[in-house]
This record gives sequence, C-alpha cells and structure tokens, in this order.
Amino acid sequence: MLDDDIRTTTSATILADGDGDSPRRTGVWFIGGRGSVATTATLGLHAVSRGLAPETGLVSQLEEVAQAGLVGFDSLVVGGHDVGTHSLADRAAELAEGGVFHPALVAALREELDAADRRIRPGVPAGGHQREASDRIQQDLTAFRDEHGLDRVVVVDVSSTEPPAPDHPALHDLDRLEQELDAGRAPLPPSSLYSYAAFRAGCPVVAFTPSTGPNIPALADLAKEAEVPWAGRDGKTGETLVKATLAPLFARRALHVRSWAAMNLLGGGDGRTLAEPAAAVSKTTTKALTVQSIVGYPVEGPVRIDYVEDLGDWKTAWDHITFDGFLGTRMTMQFTWQGCDSALAAPLVLDLARLVARAHEVGESGPLAPLGFFFKEPIGASTHALDEQWATLTRWCARLAPTP
Amino acid sequence: MLDDDIRTTTSATILADGDGDSPRRTGVWFIGGRGSVATTATLGLHAVSRGLAPETGLVSQLEEVAQAGLVGFDSLVVGGHDVGTHSLADRAAELAEGGVFHPALVAALREELDAADRRIRPGVPAGGHQREASDRIQQDLTAFRDEHGLDRVVVVDVSSTEPPAPDHPALHDLDRLEQELDAGRAPLPPSSLYSYAAFRAGCPVVAFTPSTGPNIPALADLAKEAEVPWAGRDGKTGETLVKATLAPLFARRALHVRSWAAMNLLGGGDGRTLAEPAAAVSKTTTKALTVQSIVGYPVEGPVRIDYVEDLGDWKTAWDHITFDGFLGTRMTMQFTWQGCDSALAAPLVLDLARLVARAHEVGESGPLAPLGFFFKEPIGASTHALDEQWATLTRWCARLAPTP
Amino acid sequence: MLDDDIRTTTSATILADGDGDSPRRTGVWFIGGRGSVATTATLGLHAVSRGLAPETGLVSQLEEVAQAGLVGFDSLVVGGHDVGTHSLADRAAELAEGGVFHPALVAALREELDAADRRIRPGVPAGGHQREASDRIQQDLTAFRDEHGLDRVVVVDVSSTEPPAPDHPALHDLDRLEQELDAGRAPLPPSSLYSYAAFRAGCPVVAFTPSTGPNIPALADLAKEAEVPWAGRDGKTGETLVKATLAPLFARRALHVRSWAAMNLLGGGDGRTLAEPAAAVSKTTTKALTVQSIVGYPVEGPVRIDYVEDLGDWKTAWDHITFDGFLGTRMTMQFTWQGCDSALAAPLVLDLARLVARAHEVGESGPLAPLGFFFKEPIGASTHALDEQWATLTRWCARLAPTP
Amino acid sequence: MLDDDIRTTTSATILADGDGDSPRRTGVWFIGGRGSVATTATLGLHAVSRGLAPETGLVSQLEEVAQAGLVGFDSLVVGGHDVGTHSLADRAAELAEGGVFHPALVAALREELDAADRRIRPGVPAGGHQREASDRIQQDLTAFRDEHGLDRVVVVDVSSTEPPAPDHPALHDLDRLEQELDAGRAPLPPSSLYSYAAFRAGCPVVAFTPSTGPNIPALADLAKEAEVPWAGRDGKTGETLVKATLAPLFARRALHVRSWAAMNLLGGGDGRTLAEPAAAVSKTTTKALTVQSIVGYPVEGPVRIDYVEDLGDWKTAWDHITFDGFLGTRMTMQFTWQGCDSALAAPLVLDLARLVARAHEVGESGPLAPLGFFFKEPIGASTHALDEQWATLTRWCARLAPTP
Ligand SMILES: NC(=O)c1ccc[n+]([C@@H]2O[C@H](COP(=O)([O-])OP(=O)(O)OC[C@H]3O[C@@H](n4cnc5c(N)ncnc54)[C@H](O)[C@@H]3O)[C@@H](O)[C@H]2O)c1
Ligand SMILES: NC(=O)c1ccc[n+]([C@@H]2O[C@H](COP(=O)([O-])OP(=O)(O)OC[C@H]3O[C@@H](n4cnc5c(N)ncnc54)[C@H](O)[C@@H]3O)[C@@H](O)[C@H]2O)c1
Ligand SMILES: NC(=O)c1ccc[n+]([C@@H]2O[C@H](COP(=O)([O-])OP(=O)(O)OC[C@H]3O[C@@H](n4cnc5c(N)ncnc54)[C@H](O)[C@@H]3O)[C@@H](O)[C@H]2O)c1
Ligand SMILES: NC(=O)c1ccc[n+]([C@@H]2O[C@H](COP(=O)([O-])OP(=O)(O)OC[C@H]3O[C@@H](n4cnc5c(N)ncnc54)[C@H](O)[C@@H]3O)[C@@H](O)[C@H]2O)c1
Ligand code: NA
Ligand code: NA
Repeated sequence: MLDDDIRTTTSATILADGDGDSPRRTGVWFIGGRGSVATTATLGLHAVSRGLAPETGLVSQLEEVAQAGLVGFDSLVVGGHDVGTHSLADRAAELAEGGVFHPALVAALREELDAADRRIRPGVPAGGHQREASDRIQQDLTAFRDEHGLDRVVVVDVSSTEPPAPDHPALHDLDRLEQELDAGRAPLPPSSLYSYAAFRAGCPVVAFTPSTGPNIPALADLAKEAEVPWAGRDGKTGETLVKATLAPLFARRALHVRSWAAMNLLGGGDGRTLAEPAAAVSKTTTKALTVQSIVGYPVEGPVRIDYVEDLGDWKTAWDHITFDGFLGTRMTMQFTWQGCDSALAAPLVLDLARLVARAHEVGESGPLAPLGFFFKEPIGASTHALDEQWATLTRWCARLAPTP
Repeated sequence: MLDDDIRTTTSATILADGDGDSPRRTGVWFIGGRGSVATTATLGLHAVSRGLAPETGLVSQLEEVAQAGLVGFDSLVVGGHDVGTHSLADRAAELAEGGVFHPALVAALREELDAADRRIRPGVPAGGHQREASDRIQQDLTAFRDEHGLDRVVVVDVSSTEPPAPDHPALHDLDRLEQELDAGRAPLPPSSLYSYAAFRAGCPVVAFTPSTGPNIPALADLAKEAEVPWAGRDGKTGETLVKATLAPLFARRALHVRSWAAMNLLGGGDGRTLAEPAAAVSKTTTKALTVQSIVGYPVEGPVRIDYVEDLGDWKTAWDHITFDGFLGTRMTMQFTWQGCDSALAAPLVLDLARLVARAHEVGESGPLAPLGFFFKEPIGASTHALDEQWATLTRWCARLAPTP
Repeated sequence: MLDDDIRTTTSATILADGDGDSPRRTGVWFIGGRGSVATTATLGLHAVSRGLAPETGLVSQLEEVAQAGLVGFDSLVVGGHDVGTHSLADRAAELAEGGVFHPALVAALREELDAADRRIRPGVPAGGHQREASDRIQQDLTAFRDEHGLDRVVVVDVSSTEPPAPDHPALHDLDRLEQELDAGRAPLPPSSLYSYAAFRAGCPVVAFTPSTGPNIPALADLAKEAEVPWAGRDGKTGETLVKATLAPLFARRALHVRSWAAMNLLGGGDGRTLAEPAAAVSKTTTKALTVQSIVGYPVEGPVRIDYVEDLGDWKTAWDHITFDGFLGTRMTMQFTWQGCDSALAAPLVLDLARLVARAHEVGESGPLAPLGFFFKEPIGASTHALDEQWATLTRWCARLAPTP
Repeated sequence: MLDDDIRTTTSATILADGDGDSPRRTGVWFIGGRGSVATTATLGLHAVSRGLAPETGLVSQLEEVAQAGLVGFDSLVVGGHDVGTHSLADRAAELAEGGVFHPALVAALREELDAADRRIRPGVPAGGHQREASDRIQQDLTAFRDEHGLDRVVVVDVSSTEPPAPDHPALHDLDRLEQELDAGRAPLPPSSLYSYAAFRAGCPVVAFTPSTGPNIPALADLAKEAEVPWAGRDGKTGETLVKATLAPLFARRALHVRSWAAMNLLGGGDGRTLAEPAAAVSKTTTKALTVQSIVGYPVEGPVRIDYVEDLGDWKTAWDHITFDGFLGTRMTMQFTWQGCDSALAAPLVLDLARLVARAHEVGESGPLAPLGFFFKEPIGASTHALDEQWATLTRWCARLAPTP
C-alpha cells in the first residue's frame, strides 16, 4: 500500500552521476514573488544561509530527507513574477510588524531583499493574448537562468488563489491548447499559463496553491513530453496537516469517525482572497478530502474558511470530531491550531524547490507522487495519511541519494 | 529504525503449522476481573460474538492485524481474580447508567455475565505469605484451563494501579526471589506476584496497568526460562495516544516543540486510585516520556492527573503545546480529548489477549516489542511514535500469518 | 441605564389583588407542540410537578423571580398546534435515547404525555385563506380555555424557524391587515398568523423562535388594543447566552474586542431547518447583534450555524475572541459550549409562560421589555448584557410581587 | 444584597470640597518597583500621559468610574522599593522583546523610565530588625512625598508572592505588635512590614498580591487608627476574572455546577515564584473561592498553577466545567484564556492608585469593599460575582463624585 506512491522513482544506478556536494546553481522562481509566502521564503533563505536563523521548519534538512543529495541553500537564487509593485523590503517590514519574524532580520538582510526585488518581473493578469504572455514568461525564465548561470530553474506558484477555472476543451488536449494560443485566445487560467510557459522553458513546477496550475491533462502531457517533473498541489500547512496526522489514529484504532467539522479563521492577503466564496471553493474542496480518504468512508461535517482581518497571518483553526468506540460509545475530540501561515509555508517552499530540483537532476518527469507529504491534494498519490506520506518520502529520498 | 523493534519475531516457516481457523480455545484471565475495564471487555466480548454490537474499536479485526491468524471471539473464555465482591452484572449496570454502553446490552447478556462472574476467584492482597498465594493463583489458573479445555490462558492485569514498588534485591535475581518466597516472605508487589504465578503456570501475561507486574529482571528471566511471551505496559488509550500521534507531526516537519503541558481529569475507580499521589507517580512518569522520546530532546511542561468524581469514566484531557517554526516564529496548538476510558481500554485488552495468544502459539517468548502500539511504556521497543508502532505491528502480524 | 428597560411596569398598588398563592389555572399552548422543545417542556412540567425531577434550570423558581407570585406548576395545562402527527410519547422516547433526559421519565409519565397529546390540534401551513385559518386557531384556543376552565392561555411559539418574511404593507397597518384577511388573502407568515389569532382571542404570546411572530407593527398595535402582553424573541440558550455573559467583562475592564468569531454545530430538527440558508439568516442576524450592542462598537467576525446530524440535540459552539489590553497588547480567549438544546430551552419556556401569565394577570400589555434576559433579540429592551438583564428582571419581579 | 458592600461610603455632602479637576499631586509607590507589573505600569502611565498609547484597559477612564473625580495621569509620580537591582529600562526592554508592549515605547520613554528608576529605593528582606526596617521605609515614603510636593502617596504592593506567613500573636494585636518591633524582633512577613510602615506614614495601601500585607487584625486596627483606607487582595486579571464573570450565568439560569477544574500555565518571574508549592498555596486558595461563593454550594475540581518557562508573561488558563440542566441533563463548557499578565495587571494598578487616592481625599478609611471588582479575594465585600461588583463600584464612584 505504501509502495504504490513511488512509481516514478528512477533506479539508484542512474543517480550515480548525481553528486550531492557539487555546486549546482539553482533558480527558485516565485509566481507571486512579492506575496507573504515568497517574501518569508526569500528572507528566510538568506537568514539560514548566513546563519542568522536556525533550520527549524526545514524538512529538507532532516537527515532522512537531506540524504537525497539536495542543492545547498548558498546555491539558490531567487526571482519571480508578481502583478503587485510594493517592494519586498516593505512587505518584509509589514510581516515583521505582524510578528511573523523578528524585525532585526529585515534590517540585517535589507541588501539581499533589494537584490531579490530587482529580479521580480511584472506578472501576467487573467485573459489577454496568452501566446504573447507565455512567450514573455519564457523569456523571463531563460534570461534569469542565463544571467545567473543556473543549472535549472524551479518555478514555484505562490500567487493568490484563483477561482476554479471554467472548463474548456483546450485544457484536455495539448494540440487543441496550442491552436487556441496560436489563435491569440486565452483558454488558460493564469496559474496554468505560468505552468505552460515553465514547461515550455524546461522548468519544473511546484504548485503550492490550490489553483489549477499544471493540473490539467494538456499540461500533464506537456510535462511528460518536456521531461520535466512537477509537484502539487496546495501546500499542507495548518488544519489539514493536523487532520492528516490525526485521522490515522482513528483508522488504526478502529474507531469510527462520525463527524469532523472544521472552522478556519484567517486574515492577511490570502484570507482576503479566500473571503470571496468563488476562491474559497478551490480551498475547501481540497481540504475536505483528507479525512474521508484516510478513514475510507464518508464523514459528515462542514469545512469553513472565514476572513478575520485582525488575525493577519495567524491562522486559527478549530476542529471538532465525534467518533464511536467499542459498543458504540460516543466520544469527542477537538483541537485549536494557532499557526503563522507564512512561517509554516515558507520553509516547505524551499524544501520543495530543492527536492524537485533533485528529481529533475536525476531525470524524473511528470507528477512527483512521493512529495504528497507536502500537499493537501497530493497529485499522483493515493494516500492522505501523513505517516504513510512520510514513509514514502523518505524511501524516495533514500533512492535519490547520490552513490558515495 | 523501524525494524529494530521486531527482534523477537520468529521466522515465517515456523508458523507453517499455526492455523488461523482451527478452534483453539483460549482463556482470558483478568486480574481485577470485576473492574470497569474487565467488565466492559467481558460484556463486549459476548456482545460482539453474538452480533449485538459492531467491531468498532477492535484493532485485531482490522485486516492488517487479523492476518496474524487470531483466535475467534467464540473461542475465548473469561475468568479472573478480584479482591472486590460486587457482581459483574451490577458493575455493568453502573457502567451502562454512566453512559459507557447501552443498558439493553446488560439485559441481553445477563446470563453470560453471571457465568463469567462465577469464574472470578478471590484476589490476593499485598503482603502475606507470597509462596502460598502464588501456589493458589497457579492452581486457579490450572483449574480454569483444565475445566474449560483451554489450549492456553492469557493473564491480563487490569487491576487497580499500585504505588511504585520499593526496590528489593529479589526483584533483580530470580534465585534470590525464589529463596525469599520459600522463606515465606513477601518481596513482590501484588501485580508482580500475579505475573510470577502466571509464568510459573506457563501463561503469557499482558500488563495493561502501569504497575510493576512482569517488568523486573527476575520475572523477565523467568518468562524466558518458561518460554512464555508477555507484553506491556500501561494501555495507551487517551491523552498519550494523541501525543503519540501528534508528536511525529512536529518531528517530521522540523518544528521545534518548546513546551507540552497536559491536564487529565478523570473520575471512576481508576480516577479514585490515581487521586492518591503515590499511585499517580507511576502513571505520570510513563505519560511524560512519550513526547521527549519522539522529538528527541527534552520538552518542558507539567503532566497532571486530577480526580473529578463527576466525570466518572469520561476522561477529559487538555494538552497545550507551544512550538517554533521557521525563523523562530512561535505557535500554539491545543486539544481536548473527551474519551470514555473503559470503552477505549476494553477492546485493546481483547486485542492483546488474542495477539499474545497467537505469539505463544507460534513459540515467541519474552517481551513482545511489536505490541508497543498498545502501550504508554512499550517494553522492549525503542519508539513511542504511533505510526512507527503501527508499521511494526502490522509487519509482525504479516509474519505471524498462517501459511495457506 | 438599567431602568429604561422597565417602562412597561405597572405600579405595585395595582398588584394588590394579585395573589401568588391562589389556584389560577393557566393554559400553555405550544405552536409546534410536538417538537423537541415542547415535548421536553411538557414532560418536564409533569416530572417537576410530580417530584420526579429537581427544579434545575427553572429560573422562575429562583427566589428573586419567584417573588413575582407565579402560578404553580400544578395549575398549568398544556395544549398546542402542530403540523406533524407523530405522538408526544414517541418523540419523548427519541429524545431520551438521544440523552436529553432519562428513559425512566418517559415510562413514568406516559399517561400525562398521552393526555397532552390529545390536546394538540392540527397546525396551519403557510398560505391558504388566512382569515379562515385564524378563526380556526381562535376556536381551538377558546375551546381549550373553556374545556379546562382556564383563567388564561399563554401561546408559546416553539415551531420550526421560518425564513425571513417578505415585506408587505399589511404588516405595518392593522386596518390594512384586516382588509387583506377579509379578502381571503395570506399576507402573514404562519408565525404571525398564530400571534394574530392569539391576540384576537385575548391570549398573551411568547415568541421563542426567531420567526416574525408578533414582531410587526400591525400586531404590536393589535396587542395594545387587545390589552395583552407579549415577549420575544428567540430564546437565548447557548452560545448567545455565553456571549451576553462574557462581553460585559471586556466592556467593564476597558478591553477592546477586535474580533469575535462563532461557529455553531447542531443536529436535530432545529438543525435541519437551519441548514437551509434562508432560515439561518433569521438566526445569525439575531445572534450577531449581541456583542456589538454590549461593547458599543462594531466587532468583526463570522457567525456560522452548521448542521451536523450526528450531534442531535447537543449543540456545540466554539467562539474565538481577540482583544487588546493596555498598550495595545493582543490577547485571545476561546470557549467551547456543549449544551443540550432542548434541555436548555424547555425550562425557559415554562418560566416565560408563568411570567407572562403573571404580567397578564396584573394588567400589563404590549412587549415585556423586562424579559430580555430570556431572549437573543430582546424586544423593547435596550441592553443585551446578561447582568443588566438580570437586574432588570428581578426588579420587575419585585414590583409584580403580590402584597402580603 | 448589592448594597451591603458599600458600608464604608461617606455621604455625598462631604465630597463637596473634593474637586476632580484640581491638580492634586499623588505619589504611586510600588513595592516590587522593578517587577513586570510595576515596570509595565510605570511605562504605561507615561505612554498614556504623553498620548503614545490609547486608554485601553484603564477601568478608571470609563465614564462610570471616572465620575468619582480622579487625579489626572499627569499628576502621578512613581517611586518604589525593590530588592532587585536591574534597571527599569532593561526590564522594559525584556518585556517588549517578550511581546508585552511595542519596543518603540521603550525607546520613546527612556528618559521617564530612568527618572523613575532613580526613585526606587532598596527593599527590605525577610527577618532582620523590623523596627529599624520600618523606620527606613517610612523615611523613604516621607522623603518622596516632600521632595515631589505630593498631596499623598499610595503604596501599591506588586512584589513577589510570599509563602503563607506563620501565625503569631503579634499579628492579632497592635499593641503586642509594637512591643515585638520595639524589642528588635521580626514577627511580620515582609509584605505586612511594608503595610505597617505605610500606615504609620499615613499612606493608603493597595495589596495587589496574595501575600498577607495589610490583611491581619493588627494592621486593620492601625489603618482605622491612622484613618487611611486600603484595598485588596490579589489582582483579578485572568482565569479568576473569567470565573467571576461566568459563574453568575449558571447561578441565574438555575443550572447546577457539578465540577469546575482549572489549569493555569505561566512563565515569567511570577510563574517562577509560584512554581514553589509554598507560594502557590496562597494563590490557589484565593482562586478556588470564587465559584463556590457565587453559586452558593461547594463545587469539586482542582485548581492548578504550573510553571512553563516558555510562556513568559503569557498566562494560559484552561477551565473545564460540567453542569446539570433541566431534568438532570449533563452539559459541559470549557474555555481557554491566553492573556498577557503584566498588560492586564498594570492598568488596574493605576486604576486602584487613583481610586484609593480619591477615597483618602474624601476621608474614607479601612478596607474599601467597593473595590472588590479588582480582586480575587475582595476584602470587606461579600460577593465575588463580577456584575455585582461592577454595580457596587460604579455606585460608589457616583457617590464620590465631586459636586459641580
Ligand atoms: N501560507 C500558507 O500556509 C499557504 C498554504 C497553502 C497554500 N497557500 C497559498 O499560497 C498562495 C500565496 O499565499 P500568500 O499568503 O503569500 O498570499 P499573498 O496574497 O500575500 O500573496 C500572493 C501574491 O500573488 C500575487 N499575484 C496575484 N495574482 C498574480 C498573478 N496573476 N501573477 C503574479 N502574481 C500574482 C499578488 O500580487 C501577491 O503578491 C495562496 O494561493 C495561498 O492559498 C498558502
Ligand atoms: N481505562 C483505561 O483507559 C486504562 C488505560 C490504561 C491503563 N488502565 C489501567 O487499568 C486498570 C483498571 O482500570 P479500571 O478503570 O478498570 O479500574 P477499576 O478501579 O474499575 O478496577 C480495578 C479492579 O481491580 C481490583 N483489584 C484491586 N486490587 C486487586 C488485587 N490485588 N487483586 C485483584 N484485583 C484487584 C479492584 O477490586 C477493581 O475491581 C488500572 O490500573 C488503570 O490504570 C486503564
Ligand atoms: N432549543 C433551543 O435551545 C432553542 C433556542 C432558541 C430558539 N429555539 C427555537 O425553537 C423552535 C423549536 O425548536 P425545536 O428544537 O423544538 O424544533 P423541532 O424541529 O424539534 O420542532 C418544531 C416543531 O414545529 C412544528 N411546526 C413546523 N411548522 C409548523 C406550523 N406551521 N404550525 C405548527 N407547528 C409547526 C414541527 O412539526 C415540529 O414539531 C425553533 O424555531 C428554534 O429555532 C430553540
Ligand atoms: N500580573 C498579574 O496579572 C498579577 C495578578 C495578580 C497578582 N499579581 C501579583 O503581582 C506580583 C508581581 O507580579 P510580577 O509579574 O510583576 O512579578 P515579578 O517577579 O516580575 O516582580 C516582583 C518584584 O518584586 C521584587 N521583590 C521581591 N521581594 C521583594 C521585597 N521583599 N521587597 C521589595 N521588592 C521585592 C522582585 O525583586 C521583583 O522585582 C506578584 O505577587 C503577583 O502574584 C500579578
Ligand atoms: Na501518525
Ligand atoms: Na456578568
């Protein structure tokens, strides 16, 4: 059961020329590069590199994962697209004021933030002439790679969550998609346009948001064709993370879950976006799957995401669970999670960039099922249980390990 | 890391003559047979056998565990020792009134309860002439086995938690122990006396309480010598179960746990016993180990058990956790668990009896490390993480599986 | 500030002929007489009368309230309307199975339940010829009064919550309303039709639901004209009760409430009704007013009501509050309320019937502001703070007290 | 019932010469002047005076309280005793780092903090020659009053909680006490020695800690004799505040409280002190009284205070309440309070200094029962219910109001 998630893994012998220690320069290209997650990741990358902060939260620094032979933090260069124009330093100052990290870090890393800021290019809005937009994105990616002498560039989508995209035949068929783009039309939601351009430019993609992104048949085919790997979707950082950890308890103790209700309160930019019901649909859909998929039967209960401006980046979730034990005895569990969203997401984004870069290096392509550990909706994988995902991830990392 | 817990497993070939379907009659002998856990287990065994209740809560009925080839519920016969004299039916009625199970079950199973009641023999108090007491216990066990034509009898300790036993040289040396017993002295706490007698009678032991029981060098040697397996200690049913499930989340996401405080409120007989500080020491000690052992560093925070008579069997636990994320950001999680203690413990007691019986059947002896999944203090095992314990348990069950 | 709520109170001298001890027979007529609240109230009335249950939950038995000189439980006779046809005894058995009260009470009071059952008349649906329907309701009320020799009948609306009623000129003008009814039309929502008929029959009304009921100008005028008192609306039994108690803490300690988010989970018949968004609007609107009205400024935060079938009558609410203290320090409070809705509502319904009957006896008419203590939306009163409501209620009861 | 708390109130005519607007210079003398509460109060006083912070948390700025005619913040001068020697500015910086207030305030008010620092005199330890110590304290107080031209000095005890003092005949008899002091002995706990010296110097006292302080017969007599008022004891800032607010809900709804369990987690200096069981006794005793006193019958349940260093000043309390409703139905409520202790206590300390100064001005003496609103153990008052305390406080303030 654990093994079916690691279909894509290449054999250890191919890894022989991979070398965990060689200075492989790698680009991390953030779609939404001026957002909270990207800003925290950018600042944090430099803080950790320069020894100003510990490695807390970085899964890729745990021995079981690091064994994969990942690129060093020193070798990462950050760039990105964003439709916003505020400076990274300003956003970082705001986040520090909101308690996401210590203000001293912003002062100490001002130069690094400004340099990264200059590498952020204007994003593309919805609609327009998507062939032209795609060409421009590819040029940005290629220019970035060339200018910084990068071995590869991983595109990481951390832009605002989109509403679910209306269906279109072009999403299901790559040829049809190319025709539409050539015709100057705009069949793709922006997140998918970025993925299209990334794959065309030979770049792996991390879909950290619940938006459509690479997750349509036409782009899945393109990724295979272009021989690039991708991973998604929707980073698992808070309430769903706890669900994925707790639900196995009920399954393995043969306790019957009768209801699981979830309320999420959040402020911040992401909260504002999700306050719009259309965008929230993408999110609550991916969140609701977790429990049912782990226990193996439908479980009633609402999943709510509500905007509370005052909470800022501090997402607060309350879950209430009723379950039956032996002889039908009814019991209850509830938890409250008070997490800082950007501080939880940022290290995962760096972990994913490093892991996907390594997968690219050893020649993997298509959806990377072993990365399900990181996602609310683990594309290509069959389990939502965190423990099984961890076992799968670490076995995969062991296989990616460079031979000594 | 996972594998070091299954040292005791015998090879699959030995299992060839084990046959999961043959009618192997097995005795379950409860020390504390009139207590809440034993009463619920006795009632529940018959309720499930007769199809009056679903299999909820029975881990041994999950496919991954059942594959070990376990004795059927129909083939279990319950007996026991207790120092109390109230009837099983009366205790069952009390538990039903307290909401532990439906009153209709007590009415429907009145006959079975009365029959089991007649198989409960007077327990032994602390002190006295322990050689004589031990002989009497052995006779009780042998008579039970003979009278009911049992293939084996598993002794399950679900009696009141003892205060920690004072140390004595006889606890560390089997010869010395025998001399003390022969001399008419009483070096053993009652729980260990029962284990001694069980081993001498060739019976496997399940130490479901935090009392000393079989967990002293002299008895460990005796079990090996007598070639009987045993498992312990202290059933993991509530707050510690959640700890064992949640702590891995922090470890695997590289989140640093700064404090973990736990308050347990409980009424009932067990609550009354633990309200005495001396008895509580045994319990809070085993509970505190879990988190530290999983995350790998010391974590501050009190562990409290308080008696609230009004709660009866409904144990309520509140845990409050503080942790650091990326860049040192402080976050908080808390949970409240409202579980029915006896309803949680009773099925595990049946699971353990079946699993230990199977281990005995295939010739295992000594502490059964793969059963750590069930215990707060998993004797012989190195991990407290529930997911690793599950993986170990199910692999062990696969090896015990009868060859077709 | 406290005093402006008791405008309607008549002077103590008028009360001279009121006599708290005389056997004044009083009818309690439930709209929704077969629902959970009405069933629990009916059963409970008899349980308390016959000494089978303590007076827990009955505010009208507290000395400060009882001093008003209320009719005895023995002198209450229950009847009602309902559109459903299941028997009271069946509903009571269901509620007992769900843990609302002990099954033994249902057995012991079977006769009383059956007698009450026979006094429940068919309810009226929405629409139809409302003059005819009203006439029939009035006849039912008058027949009940005559048959049982009652001094008065208090009509208590505990029927299913309606969606908000569409506005209509007839709701604002009694003459216009009469014309519409005469013309065979149906301008009123059912809850208001019952109130219309009650007032016409000279009966006081308790609006325990959030439905429109008597709370429209045309009916307010009618009540004055008919010289009958009424009280409303929406019984305050759970989360709002806690809000009304806690919000004054913040106000009086000058702590600034920044957000107050509320999630309500409930099953049962009421939960099913509220699961329909249209009906929920009535409820969330009255719930949201409380905090803002007490602290005196707008407070952000969602108010959710979600249906979780499994919870049955056990409403579970979680509220999360953020607030500022001295120097702007941010703090948090949260609470979880696990209440049994019908057990909380039923005694209030009896309290209100007794209090409104007493008000009628002493000649009060129109909305009874001093009863705000009982309601989420206290008609006629200016405060939502429970402590001020309590002070107002008890002072009013002191004035209603029969002179010795 | 409400009125019996305001026995000490002088009549309004006496207040005629009191004038709320005249510049009455008032000293606030902190015992424990370098502690967290005193530091926050000192910083906050200047922050509010200079308009750098809003008046949040200051009860004395609410209209109902301010009407008493209180001295302006500009007219307060801070001094104190402390046995510690760290600077106020250093402690303030630490508190800011711990999130108690914004670091910018420390920078902006550096000068004011340093000036206050210079007015803190060495404290007296336990034991020694208490007559000499008392003389020195009186000299410090008199010198402070003279140097700053103060109309009066209010002594506020915010020093570390003492263990309960051993009883001694001198505590019960003022003459006997004087003899002991003259004889060079040390019968008083330090907190009471400070109170003794304060009363001798004609200064009112606020006992904000649970220590003995003025609360012994000998000192009560001295205060009367010296015609100075005092108030105490143990500021009500967190879990007890919520208890005092919530318990009336149960009382007034006739709900029967069956158990009320409380767990308090706290770090900081106060937490460290209370981690010593002897000191904690003073605290848990005053905390446990609240509920029982409000509902009027004994309620079982533990009250725990545990030290969790990591929490710093952020006290986290969890309370779990079980109660019966109508027909004996069992229900549950729980709350979690996450408050910043110093930010909650500091404004109350300023409120109390202003209110006690006003009482002194109008000639009140002895324990000020109307200030029970502020204390866990309200000396001289009969109620613990926050709402009744609020009513009493505001009526008292109305009587203190200067005539226009
Ligand atoms: N923080 C978490 O824990 C977490 C977890 C899972 C998923 N996510 C997802 O990550 C994303 C980012 O979250 P955030 O908190 O940083 O949000 P944010 O609002 O702070 O940042 C989003 C950024 O995307 C930019 N953007 C919007 N449309 C764009 C476009 N078409 N092209 C380029 N840039 C565009 C915005 O200008 C903004 O700077 C969200 O979709 C969120 O749902 C976050
Ligand atoms: N219920 C749970 O979730 C759980 C979990 C882990 C461990 N346990 C442990 O299981 C044990 C039983 O719990 P319970 O709730 O049934 O308690 P209980 O008090 O209801 O029952 C204990 C029984 O042991 C009997 N007993 C006491 N001393 C004895 C002796 N010397 N010989 C024989 N019998 C003796 C008592 O008379 C009583 O009938 C306790 O030690 C408890 O700590 C329970
Ligand atoms: N239980 C509480 O704590 C509480 C608190 C405040 C308000 N309320 C309100 O009390 C009402 C009753 O709650 P419940 O739990 O008993 O609900 P319920 O669904 O069990 O009962 C409602 C009853 O009303 C009847 N009914 C529906 N339409 C009718 C009509 N037109 N004429 C006559 N009868 C009609 C139904 O047949 C049903 O028997 C609801 O409106 C609820 O919102 C309840
Ligand atoms: N913060 C709250 O919410 C709160 C509420 C109620 C009561 N209290 C009480 O207020 C007191 C102060 O709390 P804190 O958090 O500021 O504690 P703290 O430990 O930060 O400060 C106490 C100060 O008292 C000084 N001190 C000790 N013994 C002394 C002595 N003999 N003479 C003079 N100074 C002495 C210490 O040096 C220290 O500076 C404690 O007793 C606490 O229990 C606080
Ligand atoms: Na797990
Ligand atoms: Na109150």
